[in-house]
Amino acid sequence: MNDTICAISTAPGSGGIAVIRVSGPEAVAICNGMFFAKNKEKNLFTQPAYSICYGSIRRGEEYLDEALVSLFRAPHSYTGQDTVEITCHGSPYIQQQILQLLVEKGCRTALPGEFTQRAFLNGKMDLSQAEAVADLIASTSAGMHKLAMNQMRGSFGRELEKLREQLLNFTSLIELELDFGEEDVEFADRTHLKQLASDMACLIRKLADSFSVGNAIKNGIPVAIIGETNVGKSTLLNHLVGEERAIVSDIHGTTRDVIEDTINLSGITFRFIDTAGIRETTDTIESLGIERTFVKLQQASIVLWVIDLTGSPARLEALSEVIVPRLEGKKTILLFNKSDLLSQAELEASHQLLPDIVAHRLYISSKEREDIHLLKHHLIEIANIPTIHSADVIITNIRHYEALIHAHAALLRILEGLTQNISGDFLSQDIRECLYHLGEITGHISNTEILFNIFNRFCIGK
Amino acid sequence: MNDTICAISTAPGSGGIAVIRVSGPEAVAICNGMFFAKNKEKNLFTQPAYSICYGSIRRGEEYLDEALVSLFRAPHSYTGQDTVEITCHGSPYIQQQILQLLVEKGCRTALPGEFTQRAFLNGKMDLSQAEAVADLIASTSAGMHKLAMNQMRGSFGRELEKLREQLLNFTSLIELELDFGEEDVEFADRTHLKQLASDMACLIRKLADSFSVGNAIKNGIPVAIIGETNVGKSTLLNHLVGEERAIVSDIHGTTRDVIEDTINLSGITFRFIDTAGIRETTDTIESLGIERTFVKLQQASIVLWVIDLTGSPARLEALSEVIVPRLEGKKTILLFNKSDLLSQAELEASHQLLPDIVAHRLYISSKEREDIHLLKHHLIEIANIPTIHSADVIITNIRHYEALIHAHAALLRILEGLTQNISGDFLSQDIRECLYHLGEITGHISNTEILFNIFNRFCIGK
Repeated sequence: MNDTICAISTAPGSGGIAVIRVSGPEAVAICNGMFFAKNKEKNLFTQPAYSICYGSIRRGEEYLDEALVSLFRAPHSYTGQDTVEITCHGSPYIQQQILQLLVEKGCRTALPGEFTQRAFLNGKMDLSQAEAVADLIASTSAGMHKLAMNQMRGSFGRELEKLREQLLNFTSLIELELDFGEEDVEFADRTHLKQLASDMACLIRKLADSFSVGNAIKNGIPVAIIGETNVGKSTLLNHLVGEERAIVSDIHGTTRDVIEDTINLSGITFRFIDTAGIRETTDTIESLGIERTFVKLQQASIVLWVIDLTGSPARLEALSEVIVPRLEGKKTILLFNKSDLLSQAELEASHQLLPDIVAHRLYISSKEREDIHLLKHHLIEIANIPTIHSADVIITNIRHYEALIHAHAALLRILEGLTQNISGDFLSQDIRECLYHLGEITGHISNTEILFNIFNRFCIGK
Repeated sequence: MNDTICAISTAPGSGGIAVIRVSGPEAVAICNGMFFAKNKEKNLFTQPAYSICYGSIRRGEEYLDEALVSLFRAPHSYTGQDTVEITCHGSPYIQQQILQLLVEKGCRTALPGEFTQRAFLNGKMDLSQAEAVADLIASTSAGMHKLAMNQMRGSFGRELEKLREQLLNFTSLIELELDFGEEDVEFADRTHLKQLASDMACLIRKLADSFSVGNAIKNGIPVAIIGETNVGKSTLLNHLVGEERAIVSDIHGTTRDVIEDTINLSGITFRFIDTAGIRETTDTIESLGIERTFVKLQQASIVLWVIDLTGSPARLEALSEVIVPRLEGKKTILLFNKSDLLSQAELEASHQLLPDIVAHRLYISSKEREDIHLLKHHLIEIANIPTIHSADVIITNIRHYEALIHAHAALLRILEGLTQNISGDFLSQDIRECLYHLGEITGHISNTEILFNIFNRFCIGK
């Protein structure tokens, strides 16, 4: 925190302009030594905060660039430290030259996420907000963006913090009781504590439960496309993602690799998993593909089972024996493909196929794009993602989820302890544990390893 | 100029932050309708110029991002118009959303270079300066950067403008003489005009001559590596550019495609052209390669002729008959390769090879990296690029070069006309032509097509 760091903060490569960010105690002094305002009476020391100055960046006599310099003074900056942002021409050569000059003048190049880490360490945001910054930058769909934005705006952390403070208050009182040793005093109102713990357990359960929605939105909903070889799974995937990503051919067993592709429907990301076709085979590579198909099937929450209506009913029956047990707990859509090749009577007869499966049923010709539209509607419906509002708090981070689960367990122990009238020191221990796990989320409790893991996911310059 | 344009000005892709630029008469009003300052008493209408405001970008109730907004007011901005720069999180999703919101609110997405074009049209810079902006962003070496920077800082345009004004003064006087018709008046002092035209011709000649250096720095110095098949040309190129770019093998005639690669030595770019080996062949593809070798040889200003010292002298003699006539006007380095395979006596005898060629001579083993270092020194020396100072005016743009050549021709006609005492109207015609061509450079004279060609080379957002 005591050195001054610098980094190119805009996307790498050539653009119209680029921004180089400098933050730390020497930011103003270092930049002032290489920046010369057009108006010679101005310099960065006297420049007001939140203002912009036009001038040139020079290494001695050499002009590196004409640039705009924005100034932020501690603590009113992103990092909470003095910060200078140099907006230069977007040539990679110039960006590198200015960065190099900053290093020559005493800056250190920043680590990934180091600006945000400083913001966290300076109390500008809590840890869950800092994590949301990375999520926000990585977001590629409306859903991901909204969740990250809500988290970055801090309602989640503030809510936890409020609960944490109330609970902390109780520990102090209970620990005060312990100081009185043998005397039978009770400063902490057990009824109030029970109410608080119960309310907290309820809320934290709700937060933890929101992870399934949050995770689905953040990481996309995994959809496995399964079925026999050559029933049109790859063609279907191509039509869904709108690109020729999977190799389509008429040779049985073409798709041996598990190809992943994504689409955004109504702001929700669906991660499609095209799998190797299922059939009895002596080809070892293909068997491996089928093994992986079943592994992927396990990870999927939605399964599109493509069934070739022109195939033999006996084969389908044999197949259902392998597949049906693996569909438990999955949302399944049965896609009866090649429906265009059947007569009306055959079609009606086919309605009786696989009578034991609870699933959406769709008759399609995967070569017809209109049917794909219908399928997309079914996917959105079956995904059942609620509309997210700005005020909604939804967990998207597995680290938060785990901490909430631990906090919840501690709360249940507190409640049980209160019912059983256990002694204050045991109660205090459970409360401390609950506080610890809540503190992990907001960063009241953290260690170098946790911080490294979090900020290492960031890009350099943020 | 009357509409408000917007574009992402930073490099495309994901970064820590991104900058979206909005310029035009409605820039402040449009941005104010989607930006909400953290400090609710602030808004963009009352915000001072050259200042930064922190707040959120919203589409109705939906938070798109938390952002910094920088404000510039006409005429004190890059474009000369009201300009707002939105610094947002560098997620491509957010960038697109904000851009889309700007368009919904009435902006038009900018064409390539349109901000700079507005700067030119508003008289913030002349056309040669605007062209230098694109060159600056494209510059990848110290030399290119310095030339573009000098040109952008405007000394070139200012110098031409001064000359143009003096000449313009003379035309006015001469045209005034013409108004007096038959009367024999002479307002324009012919001696002074002669002096001015002569000084200008001299200066413009110097500027036009600087194009060979400017072009070499801007586009790199083309260096052709030629020689028989299998003498180690590809290996040499690989060592020079430090990468395994050309396929190296022991099969004769491997390098059939002309591969280009560049290196920077002392701030100068050398563009290496690896060519197909020269030998008699019946292989049609290879013959084509040799044709191209000779075409490339014509374009090169430096030729590295690699000669295998272990090859037969008779072959070399036959080869020299083909090559030597093609080396006229080129700077040539003879690279005697495989010198490590020769005895001392053989080496000394080899000094007599190709006695008629004026060239640098170097004995190398292209598999030894130390020899490459020596070769690089020779290249810098033979390139003979002068050191560029900040005040130096060097032409890098073929459009400028052509205009200067035309202006120079007109000046010579003026001087000749003065010697021959031609009438004022002919003189005025030549002066007008000279003014026209000088005006083309600075943009006093321009048309839609010229502007389109110039600004279309820019990236969007600059």
